[in-house]
Order: sequence, then structure tokens, then C-alpha cells
Amino acid sequence: MAEKSLKLTGDLKFNESGLIPAIVQDADTGEVLMLAYMNKESLRRTLTSNEVWFYSRSRQELWHKGETSGNRLLVRSVWLDCDRDTILVRAHPTGPVCHTGNKTCFFQQLVEPDLEGPQEV
Amino acid sequence: MAEKSLKLTGDLKFNESGLIPAIVQDADTGEVLMLAYMNKESLRRTLTSNEVWFYSRSRQELWHKGETSGNRLLVRSVWLDCDRDTILVRAHPTGPVCHTGNKTCFFQQLVEPDLEGPQEV
Repeated sequence: MAEKSLKLTGDLKFNESGLIPAIVQDADTGEVLMLAYMNKESLRRTLTSNEVWFYSRSRQELWHKGETSGNRLLVRSVWLDCDRDTILVRAHPTGPVCHTGNKTCFFQQLVEPDLEGPQEV
Repeated sequence: MAEKSLKLTGDLKFNESGLIPAIVQDADTGEVLMLAYMNKESLRRTLTSNEVWFYSRSRQELWHKGETSGNRLLVRSVWLDCDRDTILVRAHPTGPVCHTGNKTCFFQQLVEPDLEGPQEV
């Protein structure tokens, strides 16, 4: 079967590197799990395979989330924001999303005491 | 009182434009509301004022969310991801977040039929 491309591609605002940020949210708990980047091909695969694909900026290659760890993200729905420059994927994680073993990548809280006064010279 | 700077600044990974993406989630409903960008100063103001500040890439200036619309984001907690290159703000929105009047900026769903086969030449 011929490959499909996104009708919407022209409408989506990919950045100067051809990428668009994609937020992943647990569709059941509402927890925000991670943010990574997609190129057109990873978005196409995410919409057709029902598993989340990103583009790895460090490895510069398509990244099938969970291919190594086994912790995949099963797509429930995909959303586009009003500016058409951010994706939201609501998904079911089959295991911890973070490479640290945490359920979410957002496990470090920032608080005001993380600010400090001017340094003594 | 002297201005405070972020102790963590050196640890945070701002991009080549000095910005870091910040996801905003409704702290009560769990709904993902928007994604925008912060520079160091907007992050400092967000942590000290308990209202969300961004940096507007189009206007190239600090952006106090809701300053014009009155729909502010009251900070409940701020989180950093494992790679230290994305912020998550859990907040209480005092009104619709999106400039379209929608509660969330993510109101357009992407589905597989948004893909199409190769164009006839």
C-alpha cells in the first residue's frame, strides 16, 4: 500500500528543525508524563500505528517509544493546539515512561527557595 | 530588595534562544491547557509571584498570562522534567486559557483520516 502523508502537514507549524513538541498525557489518570519532539514521519506513524513515535534530537533518528524498554505508549487520541505548533497525545503507558524508572518525567518540583539572592563578590 | 536569580539556572537547559517549553495543566481537572515558552526571568517571576509568566516569541517580550484578557493562571506547583529541558506548571485558570475562548488550546483532534494517499500528478 502506498505510504500516506499528512493532509494537515502544510498547516502544522514544525520548527526550523522540522520538529513539533508533543506532550504525552496519561489518558486514564490525566498525569502529564513527558514531552518530546515529532517530525512529520513520527506523527504519521503515531496516527497510523496507535503507538507513539518521536524523533530523537540526540540520536537524530525516529524513536519508537518503548522499543528498548518495552514501555510503550498506546495512543488514545491526538490533539493539536490553536497555534498548530504543539501536539498533545493522550495515551496509555504500558510501564514507567521515564528512563529513571519514574512513572512520569516530571518528578522534580521547583520552588521559590530554588531562587537565591545576588552572590557575594 | 535585591532581585533573586535561579540557583538552578545553570542546571536548566534553555534552548539556543534562551527559552524552555512550559506545559500548563489545570491543577484541579488535570486538563492540559497550553504550551508556551519561558526565559529565565519569566520562570523567576512565575516562582515568586504565583502567577504564570511566559516569554512571547512573536512579541519578543515578557508575557504575563492574562494581563490583557484577565484570564490568569494561578500557580499551584512547578515541575522540571528528568532532562531539565521542560517545565510543567500545575495551575488554576481564572478563565478560558485560549485566545479563541476555549478552555484549553488543545481543542482540535487529529485522526488517521487526516492522512491522505499520494496526490495524483
